[in-house]
Amino acid sequence: MGKRYFLMSEERDWTTHREAKANKLSAISNLIDGKFARTTDAKTVLEGLIAPGDKVVLEGDNQKQATFLSKMLASVDPAKVHYLHMIMSSISRPEHLDIFEDGIASKMDFSFAGPQSTRVSQMIADGTLQVGDIHTYLELYARLYVDLIPNVVLVAADKVDHEGNLYTGYNTEETPVIVESAAFHDGIVIVQANEVVDKLPRVDIPADWVDVIIPADEPYQLEPLFTRDPQNITELQILMAMMAIRGIYEKHNVQSVNHGVGFNTAAIELLLPTYGERLGLKGKIVPNWEVNPTPTLIPAIESGWIQSIHSFGGEVGMEKYIAARPDVFFVGKDGTMRSNRAFGQMAGQYALDMFVGSTLQIDQYGNSSTVTKGRLSGFGGAPNMGSNPTGRRHSTPAWQSLRPDNDPLGKGQKLVVQMVETFGSNKRPVFVDSLDAVEVRKEAKLQNVPIMIYSEDTTHIVTEEGIAYLYKTDSMAERQAAIEAIAGVTPVGLRSDPAVVKDLRARGIVAFPEDLGVNRNEATRSLLAARNMEDLVKWSKGLYNPPDKFRSWS
Amino acid sequence: MGKRYFLMSEERDWTTHREAKANKLSAISNLIDGKFARTTDAKTVLEGLIAPGDKVVLEGDNQKQATFLSKMLASVDPAKVHYLHMIMSSISRPEHLDIFEDGIASKMDFSFAGPQSTRVSQMIADGTLQVGDIHTYLELYARLYVDLIPNVVLVAADKVDHEGNLYTGYNTEETPVIVESAAFHDGIVIVQANEVVDKLPRVDIPADWVDVIIPADEPYQLEPLFTRDPQNITELQILMAMMAIRGIYEKHNVQSVNHGVGFNTAAIELLLPTYGERLGLKGKIVPNWEVNPTPTLIPAIESGWIQSIHSFGGEVGMEKYIAARPDVFFVGKDGTMRSNRAFGQMAGQYALDMFVGSTLQIDQYGNSSTVTKGRLSGFGGAPNMGSNPTGRRHSTPAWQSLRPDNDPLGKGQKLVVQMVETFGSNKRPVFVDSLDAVEVRKEAKLQNVPIMIYSEDTTHIVTEEGIAYLYKTDSMAERQAAIEAIAGVTPVGLRSDPAVVKDLRARGIVAFPEDLGVNRNEATRSLLAARNMEDLVKWSKGLYNPPDKFRSWS
Repeated sequence: MGKRYFLMSEERDWTTHREAKANKLSAISNLIDGKFARTTDAKTVLEGLIAPGDKVVLEGDNQKQATFLSKMLASVDPAKVHYLHMIMSSISRPEHLDIFEDGIASKMDFSFAGPQSTRVSQMIADGTLQVGDIHTYLELYARLYVDLIPNVVLVAADKVDHEGNLYTGYNTEETPVIVESAAFHDGIVIVQANEVVDKLPRVDIPADWVDVIIPADEPYQLEPLFTRDPQNITELQILMAMMAIRGIYEKHNVQSVNHGVGFNTAAIELLLPTYGERLGLKGKIVPNWEVNPTPTLIPAIESGWIQSIHSFGGEVGMEKYIAARPDVFFVGKDGTMRSNRAFGQMAGQYALDMFVGSTLQIDQYGNSSTVTKGRLSGFGGAPNMGSNPTGRRHSTPAWQSLRPDNDPLGKGQKLVVQMVETFGSNKRPVFVDSLDAVEVRKEAKLQNVPIMIYSEDTTHIVTEEGIAYLYKTDSMAERQAAIEAIAGVTPVGLRSDPAVVKDLRARGIVAFPEDLGVNRNEATRSLLAARNMEDLVKWSKGLYNPPDKFRSWS
Repeated sequence: MGKRYFLMSEERDWTTHREAKANKLSAISNLIDGKFARTTDAKTVLEGLIAPGDKVVLEGDNQKQATFLSKMLASVDPAKVHYLHMIMSSISRPEHLDIFEDGIASKMDFSFAGPQSTRVSQMIADGTLQVGDIHTYLELYARLYVDLIPNVVLVAADKVDHEGNLYTGYNTEETPVIVESAAFHDGIVIVQANEVVDKLPRVDIPADWVDVIIPADEPYQLEPLFTRDPQNITELQILMAMMAIRGIYEKHNVQSVNHGVGFNTAAIELLLPTYGERLGLKGKIVPNWEVNPTPTLIPAIESGWIQSIHSFGGEVGMEKYIAARPDVFFVGKDGTMRSNRAFGQMAGQYALDMFVGSTLQIDQYGNSSTVTKGRLSGFGGAPNMGSNPTGRRHSTPAWQSLRPDNDPLGKGQKLVVQMVETFGSNKRPVFVDSLDAVEVRKEAKLQNVPIMIYSEDTTHIVTEEGIAYLYKTDSMAERQAAIEAIAGVTPVGLRSDPAVVKDLRARGIVAFPEDLGVNRNEATRSLLAARNMEDLVKWSKGLYNPPDKFRSWS
């Protein structure tokens, strides 16, 4: 039988991607000197390098945005460039959606759409935007190597040298994982550069991986997403932070952690050097962090609580402080930080004891989502870090402390903590019978309900009322009762039965502040190691340089 | 209260890692020219750069081994270098364990110990080897950024240029993820190089990330781990492959897949262009693969079944073939492949519809392990790819086909398939009441039973008897009955009740060949697209160049 098969593929061309790339580059060769194109030729270059129907990755996560290239993409002639399949971590800027209204792009696979979530919802309803799917960051990166291999990637670098090597500085973020997927599959790598220099501080991405560099008209957009002004931390948040420290961090002997963005976790960070110190926890808990360089961590770092911080990205204003603390942060030989969003998410999923996040809604079963009516905000990294990776095999005391007693083949579990006040800043109940996401699924015709963190992955919920230790419940009814017990005067909480709550507290499934030895009267702002931005700057010995919008004192 | 806190850290030194590194490099500066040390100075260089108690990553996965550096490490003076905490993907070579007997190293965190698994067990029992823990690859990499940040890493490159840039060629594998963890936390990056050249084919790792390069006395060891000679594929394996294609690949519309190493999956690969073609499945199933460049995939590639293959590593003998098929494989501008074990595992976990593996034991509940009495073989990548990542949010038809019907908040699931013959090559039953791993846990004092893939993650088991669709079962008793139904004449299988089996078949929970339209008589070796290595070479048009040990025909 052999011969028949051996002859089947005689005629096939196995280098179609390479040829397409060569043809595109050849068509614009008059605009390219070495790897460099002129800023003013950007639109023409993109029109030459992007073909109709191409899969295009546009760098833009929740911090760093390839702003120049996104604007230039929005300026191309839709008669030349259309039907693009966009792949983007974050839909953050107006032109990210303009390209759909203008007929340049038609399909989108994305992860996060915070700033544009209302418009995303509307455009899906209109049929202007066809969503492939909504992802966590890591699974979106993963698909770049499997079924979403890009034809073109558009990324941002701080500095480039004349050979085309890239320096990405503090905000390396997702640039390497995007570039590699194209550079090694005959995709085209197009880079916008803030600056062209003779000698880079260091090489973050080799010139061999890059095809075209365009000096940008202005530096790429960078958001101080992880900066929280301590003056906005409330006493309820301080109470919750005290409970979390005693009832979770101390109880489970947590060593490694990711904190989501928010005032709840900022409060914890600012209580470590005060309340935590008094409890004798220094040197015993949370030495290792996977988190962006959050300014509210400065007092804990300065007080010697923290051994290491690996980061997904940088944080505006923290540059000098990070450079002066290389024992803690990941800093190169050149003295500047290297972040890495892909490796950070990998670490956040597999190497951490605990994820602590917040959300907009939690249903009566413990499922939570930030997707609310009319706002398809996407997922970001939370579902990845806020899930229990069942492929994990190494044990730590915190992980092992959640091992079920009654299963000889059992194993530990990641701590996944949701911290919420029972009513949100919009005065609406966080605890609801049914998530808005159920309705959004129907409107946006999604395959599944866009749940951020599933009940089965959620091990603890903290509110101003107390802590529900969901991992200890052995039925959905008990889980619901534990949630009701800490859901305050929300409709869910009002169903709570005092006799049941008494039993749950006795069995350690629910804890109120007094059960944890937390004195409500102590929960005042005087307990914060820093009460405002100026305090953070002082703690940093002047190394932290907050962005202007956070500077109220001078 | 402020002032007291602000003064606490005045005296702290925040650059201890950087200073330690500078001191070490300074102590051997007389042996270094640029970044280069002489081959003959390797032992002295290692003695100078590795301090007692250091965390040391030694590159050595299941294919590529930093052989020269591992031998040199085993030759250092234990009076100078001791108490090392080794971090290794794979314990593959005798000297990897010699260093523990010789007092150079004391603690080990690892992932895979195939070739040395018996000795690992003995040394743990002796107390010679203290195991931190056993990991999957990805979680071990993850910890390099959190709580196992290395002081020194020892890695292997194919070629280096005079500036110290690295070319890792086809076997990039885990080198980048290891190097980055040290290079950006004031760790020391030491590279053994096969060759020093004026101009690299391409830069895989920039010179800025590298501290010391030592030309090796011989090229690093490289194992053809993924090569399976088709002549050893049995008709039972062909029958199982036919069932898998009909009952899983076709039924679930599987688009992306990882195959473990073995003859079962090799049989599937070799049936795609014959049996699969006849079923009309070409162009409908498995276009996208995350798998090493397995030679038994050549006929499927040549027949046009496969659109893309991303790989963890290379495969000896496949170099020319890969270079000639850049539309399929990940190949750089220079024309040679780039692999990436970290990104491959990321893709394997998050982007694939299905993992198909094999194992040595499956217990009555569906838990499986390759750890057997006296052999602590570790995990490798299987638990990562063979688990259901609960952080996944994107949907594919295969994933969604496992969505439970009765849960409005339900979602899909990864297909995790175990393919085993009911009796292993050692004539022992694969299906057992209790895994040997339960005993090994006690002997090795592990925190948990070393299970490779848990029952809860396993969706299908295929044997020569049939397929158990475990994801359809709704109780552990039903799951056990489904496993018994396909466990043949093993003790587990002998418990099977014919009346129950009839019911399970009627409900689609168990399928025998006839239920799937698979004709047992057709399961002959003539159905294989290639029956031996020579056939594979012919299919490749002479581009595949098998290693000598696989060359029986000339």
